[in-house]
Amino acid sequence: MNKITHEDIQVGEIANGLPLTIPVYRLKGDGTGPRVYIQANMHGAEVQGNAVIYQLLEQLQHQTLASDITLVPYANPIGCNQKSGEFTLGRFDPITGTNWNRMYHSHLSLVDSFVAEYLDSPLTEIKEQFSAALVQATQTLLDGPAYSINTGKRIALNLQCLAHEADIVLDLHTGPISSKHLYCPEYAKASACYFNIPHVLLIPNDFDGALDEACFCPWWALSDAYKKQGRDVPVLVEAFTVELGSQEKIDLTEAKADAVSLLSYLSHKEAVLDSPFKPQKMTRYACMLQDYLAYYAPMGGMVEYTAALGSHIKAGDTIANILRMERYLSEQPLHTITLDQDAIAILHFASASVNQGTELYKFFTNYFEL
Amino acid sequence: MNKITHEDIQVGEIANGLPLTIPVYRLKGDGTGPRVYIQANMHGAEVQGNAVIYQLLEQLQHQTLASDITLVPYANPIGCNQKSGEFTLGRFDPITGTNWNRMYHSHLSLVDSFVAEYLDSPLTEIKEQFSAALVQATQTLLDGPAYSINTGKRIALNLQCLAHEADIVLDLHTGPISSKHLYCPEYAKASACYFNIPHVLLIPNDFDGALDEACFCPWWALSDAYKKQGRDVPVLVEAFTVELGSQEKIDLTEAKADAVSLLSYLSHKEAVLDSPFKPQKMTRYACMLQDYLAYYAPMGGMVEYTAALGSHIKAGDTIANILRMERYLSEQPLHTITLDQDAIAILHFASASVNQGTELYKFFTNYFEL
Amino acid sequence: MNKITHEDIQVGEIANGLPLTIPVYRLKGDGTGPRVYIQANMHGAEVQGNAVIYQLLEQLQHQTLASDITLVPYANPIGCNQKSGEFTLGRFDPITGTNWNRMYHSHLSLVDSFVAEYLDSPLTEIKEQFSAALVQATQTLLDGPAYSINTGKRIALNLQCLAHEADIVLDLHTGPISSKHLYCPEYAKASACYFNIPHVLLIPNDFDGALDEACFCPWWALSDAYKKQGRDVPVLVEAFTVELGSQEKIDLTEAKADAVSLLSYLSHKEAVLDSPFKPQKMTRYACMLQDYLAYYAPMGGMVEYTAALGSHIKAGDTIANILRMERYLSEQPLHTITLDQDAIAILHFASASVNQGTELYKFFTNYFEL
Amino acid sequence: MNKITHEDIQVGEIANGLPLTIPVYRLKGDGTGPRVYIQANMHGAEVQGNAVIYQLLEQLQHQTLASDITLVPYANPIGCNQKSGEFTLGRFDPITGTNWNRMYHSHLSLVDSFVAEYLDSPLTEIKEQFSAALVQATQTLLDGPAYSINTGKRIALNLQCLAHEADIVLDLHTGPISSKHLYCPEYAKASACYFNIPHVLLIPNDFDGALDEACFCPWWALSDAYKKQGRDVPVLVEAFTVELGSQEKIDLTEAKADAVSLLSYLSHKEAVLDSPFKPQKMTRYACMLQDYLAYYAPMGGMVEYTAALGSHIKAGDTIANILRMERYLSEQPLHTITLDQDAIAILHFASASVNQGTELYKFFTNYFEL
Repeated sequence: MNKITHEDIQVGEIANGLPLTIPVYRLKGDGTGPRVYIQANMHGAEVQGNAVIYQLLEQLQHQTLASDITLVPYANPIGCNQKSGEFTLGRFDPITGTNWNRMYHSHLSLVDSFVAEYLDSPLTEIKEQFSAALVQATQTLLDGPAYSINTGKRIALNLQCLAHEADIVLDLHTGPISSKHLYCPEYAKASACYFNIPHVLLIPNDFDGALDEACFCPWWALSDAYKKQGRDVPVLVEAFTVELGSQEKIDLTEAKADAVSLLSYLSHKEAVLDSPFKPQKMTRYACMLQDYLAYYAPMGGMVEYTAALGSHIKAGDTIANILRMERYLSEQPLHTITLDQDAIAILHFASASVNQGTELYKFFTNYFEL
Repeated sequence: MNKITHEDIQVGEIANGLPLTIPVYRLKGDGTGPRVYIQANMHGAEVQGNAVIYQLLEQLQHQTLASDITLVPYANPIGCNQKSGEFTLGRFDPITGTNWNRMYHSHLSLVDSFVAEYLDSPLTEIKEQFSAALVQATQTLLDGPAYSINTGKRIALNLQCLAHEADIVLDLHTGPISSKHLYCPEYAKASACYFNIPHVLLIPNDFDGALDEACFCPWWALSDAYKKQGRDVPVLVEAFTVELGSQEKIDLTEAKADAVSLLSYLSHKEAVLDSPFKPQKMTRYACMLQDYLAYYAPMGGMVEYTAALGSHIKAGDTIANILRMERYLSEQPLHTITLDQDAIAILHFASASVNQGTELYKFFTNYFEL
Repeated sequence: MNKITHEDIQVGEIANGLPLTIPVYRLKGDGTGPRVYIQANMHGAEVQGNAVIYQLLEQLQHQTLASDITLVPYANPIGCNQKSGEFTLGRFDPITGTNWNRMYHSHLSLVDSFVAEYLDSPLTEIKEQFSAALVQATQTLLDGPAYSINTGKRIALNLQCLAHEADIVLDLHTGPISSKHLYCPEYAKASACYFNIPHVLLIPNDFDGALDEACFCPWWALSDAYKKQGRDVPVLVEAFTVELGSQEKIDLTEAKADAVSLLSYLSHKEAVLDSPFKPQKMTRYACMLQDYLAYYAPMGGMVEYTAALGSHIKAGDTIANILRMERYLSEQPLHTITLDQDAIAILHFASASVNQGTELYKFFTNYFEL
Repeated sequence: MNKITHEDIQVGEIANGLPLTIPVYRLKGDGTGPRVYIQANMHGAEVQGNAVIYQLLEQLQHQTLASDITLVPYANPIGCNQKSGEFTLGRFDPITGTNWNRMYHSHLSLVDSFVAEYLDSPLTEIKEQFSAALVQATQTLLDGPAYSINTGKRIALNLQCLAHEADIVLDLHTGPISSKHLYCPEYAKASACYFNIPHVLLIPNDFDGALDEACFCPWWALSDAYKKQGRDVPVLVEAFTVELGSQEKIDLTEAKADAVSLLSYLSHKEAVLDSPFKPQKMTRYACMLQDYLAYYAPMGGMVEYTAALGSHIKAGDTIANILRMERYLSEQPLHTITLDQDAIAILHFASASVNQGTELYKFFTNYFEL
């Protein structure tokens, strides 16, 4: 049975002066596989990833590991524990409003000088040295004056240090009420088929502060920069945001299925050897990020969501009824909302009460089979 | 077709000085039936009652009405619109924490002098005069100096004025994640069988600030006071809190079924005449309020709720699994929670993340068939 | 120099399973003085008490102590760390809305049987045994099934265990924007003159869930119960809520002055011996709790508070201007608010933005010199 | 006396379906002066701007107006009325966390084609046509499908329509606890001396979503684009964010002084003619935006802020004491925080309770006399 080790990493301090820590679990492989980093629950309400890490730990103990694997549940000790009514208000820093998953650091500025220095180095050296450079640059930020780093940045940088040590990064999230979907960098499209996830968002090389981007953007830019120098270097790291379903829910059975899905991908990448985990046969649909439609409530009201998540909507189909009882007599109290194009319903808002302009749904449009 | 009229009642002002209003819909009957008052959404996240009022209005237009019926959706214009993340944080005043449904006024102090004055009056006069006295006393509070009434009290008193004009009061609520259940005063037990609701909580004559209590407690006390004087006066008003299911959800089909349930009761009370609405055949279970068990989380953690709502639990059955991933190695990461007595699971907390002591479930214990 | 000892007491667990603890500091006296318990920051934003405890610890190390003294800063580890925007939202449980200082337990039910058992016992035995009974009864509640105690109750009961071990209890709070004032049980009026606090609220023997009440009510009831049996037993415990000024502020100089104020009282009670701490000469004003006027905003708007806190208002004086810019042309945009009776302004709301019915001010009315 | 007109503009709808409106006040000048737009309270807690608009309206009625002037108090009807405890939680959308003042639209993309079309047009035509183009482009966004605009964007675009009609834009804000300061685009430095504001932040031509930037960036870029074509076109619009002091406060006297400050600037710009309003003599200090130091709390704790706002700090001066009472015995309980460079303290956090990484202060560094 593989040994799991545990370490607590301090990522901040709360107002009473006590430390904020995150638990880090590690398994060691034989060193031949890609290093793996998996974290969960950066957004407070998105708890199911912790259950997936639980099921992964239960499985990984009994597998043949080629890779070192690091797993971090409860990645955000503030977001995890921030309640507002029954709800876990952990999507953004309650003080500033900043999304906890928009505070990672972009190390794109390292790319050009690195390519200049390692222009003709062998691939393994590039991989090793650039990874080390990313870790080092992140650590340097953390070692800067304490007054220069805000709360969320300090948490993010600590996690980023762990993530940059890996070749494969999986950041486990959920939507509000959501079907399973995967954020996948365009270059890693082929890998998407090894997850048991029917919906795949293909994202370009733009940094917007999230962990997956912080992890793959520099490597993607590195590949591009080598190309400009006439050398073909593949993108050496893969990073995904895995959207497991709905927030505020723990489902251990579903978590086991999702663990199997991740293990299928990890087996494909030969992080786990001789494993029984194979991808399920399913039609996988993909959508380019720019075609991922945010559909905002066209009016304020009380919403009945009628589009089944994961379902394929035809143009003209009803996606919601909006009830407005303030003016039952003078206005139409019930409004039928239709979509004007074909789409797959991926997620919807968690509450029936919406202001005009609340994000009601997100849809795959112009989707295609992967 | 019966005519519906609409009036907006001002119940306060917000910080920019604009009025807070509630919409009041009225239908008139032939005057022979008991007057009916129905409100919804006093707690902001409990929106389904608005859909039930919508379906009631759609039905009531086509019925033969003996009764005047007043319906108030969106009863709480602050709670309705108070968002915190995706969640509607409308259970309590966000400034003070006071539960919006604990601010009604107890008029028990009117009882003794009323009985002295109307000791030998005919029942109809008692009914008419005591109802008028309750309305009047509520209005007097509202007419007091503006500085003497806090925000929630002003909303509550305005609603209470409307409610005291009725002989039947239905306050539509929901639980967090919940099966349908009914708060029913003990004396009105027989009426509970006319609602299509399988779970009935029988509550004593204790005032704790809620609308149903504010409406029935004085009449119950009046009946008791007459009894002490040797006269048998029934409790002349019935008031219920109807728990429709889960919060943050609009389901128009379910709302229609619930409207039918309320119309069945109203038909029985001859508020609606010659109607097709009859109570469904079902086993109805009742539980005394003191046996309604609040089960608090025995530890902090991430909860998988395993007891189906409405299901009958046997002592020793598992009701939840609690996952704690901070100390996967040094402690048991997964805890199985069992209940030590037979019970019906009525509702559970809306989130998987709980502190030690968060209300996890509520159970009927010592329940019996009605 | 007196030795301070430190212990952490666990009072709960948060959602990630980590313990919630409070720090407990203790100094030992020679055993001849009344035992003292001082806590601070039960409400999250009311932080100044922590600074007072800091200054007390700095002083107490150098005093001659007759008493054992227990000091608890950060009494509420949830409230302390609950942020909402810049504000510390720690007045009530963010999940339920329940005021953290309304969850202590009333042990009034112990009184009658105690008096029956110890009717003729000497005073020292009564004191010792009743104190032990209170601690024991509190501990029994804590030792009950984990599922029976909610989050706030568990914190409160843990603190109450410490408090019932003492003969003098000081619960350090602040108002929103506030002058210094003292909640003093009526029987302890004479003691109020030993604090350097100009405003004293005299409160009756009614339990409403606060720590001071939980501590003195049973002893007051005990005294009353003995009186009914014809025996004169004084109230043997004193408990106060000390309102230090405004929330969200740390002022170390002011904290030192407040520490001196508390030490003056403790010297008078001979907890601290041969001390230099004497009460300041000042006129102290008292007000009965029923005359403590909550003045709610008579309209929604933006408030300029014009009554200086601690100032003596004459009937007709302006206490606030309320600006309403929504209808500058059609209504009066600026309203002058006057008070219709003489009063002392004690505290006002922390924000200029108020709904109609927000508590604007609290005033001493019918006040008198102590 | 100049006539004021009033219009309500709908900027959204809340969950109960009622409209969200903002009040718009207008005065007409003789048409010879620059058009002026002034708004306040985009952030909910920053209410003092409403009082400044009140005092401006009182003054402007009696002035000789060359300019049309539009004034909008309560610019954000959601933020204004969002309470969380006593605090007005109106800095960001409570659902998404997005800062309300980061949702304006950048029209930089209009610049190049405009310059191509109006390369040799006279200055007045450029001014008129580009202003019209900005209004038009904003309106086109608003006229897009309702589902394409989120809540904050809709509010922002409505305000932006009004602002693009003006040549001078003043957005009235406050800091948390703050001294007065002015955000001034670098090109308008000369104008900064006409406000009675001692601290001026000079900001570059970078768009970050705020109203002032949305208003001046396109004009600045236009000027740059003409320069590239060899034509010298000045920046024809001035836009400032005016930071009036501290949030959650109404001070009518101070508001009058600030109105006078704005009128001094407007008189200088000949929007108001023959007026008595002249800038005060004072030393004005400026700081480049990149030198505006955010100083984050180096540790969690309870903060005593000791740097007076507006004061000139020397390197090594104490700016705060941080109290940490959890480990009074084992750690240093009181930490003195010093700044390692000369600076002017401009604002600090509104609460004493801070996490590690909470923004404690903002400082002007490398400041200079204007």
